[in-house]
Amino acid sequence: MNYILASASPRRKELLKQIGLDFAILPVCGEEHTSFTVPQEAVMDLSRQKAEEAAKQRKEKAQEEVIIGADTVVSLADMILGKPKDRQDAIRMLSALSGKSHKVFTGVTFVIFREGKKTVHSFYEETEVTMYPMSEEEINWYIGTDEPFDKAGGYGIQGRCAIFIKEIRGDYNNVVGLPVARIYQEFMKLGIDIYEKK
Amino acid sequence: MNYILASASPRRKELLKQIGLDFAILPVCGEEHTSFTVPQEAVMDLSRQKAEEAAKQRKEKAQEEVIIGADTVVSLADMILGKPKDRQDAIRMLSALSGKSHKVFTGVTFVIFREGKKTVHSFYEETEVTMYPMSEEEINWYIGTDEPFDKAGGYGIQGRCAIFIKEIRGDYNNVVGLPVARIYQEFMKLGIDIYEKK
Repeated sequence: MNYILASASPRRKELLKQIGLDFAILPVCGEEHTSFTVPQEAVMDLSRQKAEEAAKQRKEKAQEEVIIGADTVVSLADMILGKPKDRQDAIRMLSALSGKSHKVFTGVTFVIFREGKKTVHSFYEETEVTMYPMSEEEINWYIGTDEPFDKAGGYGIQGRCAIFIKEIRGDYNNVVGLPVARIYQEFMKLGIDIYEKK
Repeated sequence: MNYILASASPRRKELLKQIGLDFAILPVCGEEHTSFTVPQEAVMDLSRQKAEEAAKQRKEKAQEEVIIGADTVVSLADMILGKPKDRQDAIRMLSALSGKSHKVFTGVTFVIFREGKKTVHSFYEETEVTMYPMSEEEINWYIGTDEPFDKAGGYGIQGRCAIFIKEIRGDYNNVVGLPVARIYQEFMKLGIDIYEKK
């Protein structure tokens, strides 16, 4: 089986390397849009669009191939937080998250080409994250690290922001950007053993 | 302030680097023993012994210095799991953890030299970890990665074992071996700002 990650995110790449998957990267450039407003539905839809876009770009597919798309959002009460536009936006997001619990949703889609057939399989994973209260000084210091700007919700749990994470409930890697445990388990259910253990 | 980590663990070193602390390493060689059987008490006691042992070895201390000791154990029902002795022991531990929830305790001690005085500050952090069921084949495959042997409970959450972690409740880095969020927060309470933000 040939594995393709339809994402340019260095964090997603790192996670697939961590679990020892041999894969290629095919980042998709288009800006995806979704009409879903519920985060669970929105991230599945966006991950599907990314995987399908990458599938379209693959001119010479391997006979057995899986393309993996993923999308992550942060949800606080009824707000969906994407990547901050600028410094003010990052301050706004971090102030809203400070001292509270929020949810992180990652949607994943596999576009599978196997035995001459195409199948599409989507799911999402949800993690609750509780942050320590952050002072104005701490928010300014954290923004100064430049970590917030390419990340949903304006923070990276795997970076300096670790010091403000009180607890999580769910999968940590889902917050980083790719729920690799669930991905492995879903592959196994679909009869795809990424390690070819047998 | 001068920071010393009294541990040879590459994972603890990695975590302190992740949060951007400038520190030195002083591994302690002695085998620590504790008379406490409750995991919360045992890890605090062992972390204190490590930090005190390192403090003893520091002949020329900086005027302002903190020595950080840490100890991690895995607890399942009434058993405390340390590092597996051999392959059979790793199989036994992973079979016991498979499909169940267990707890990870990390005890941390700061030995602080400040304004001519020494203070000792210990605390622990607790994280619940729930694993997917692992088949015999999966356990054998995982042991083949050689990850289990230098780790409490026989697994590394930050390695290949990530695919078997269903969810956690608490601090992820506590399972890796050092609760850096709690460490930062405790330092702030003690008037020690590791980033000297002001």
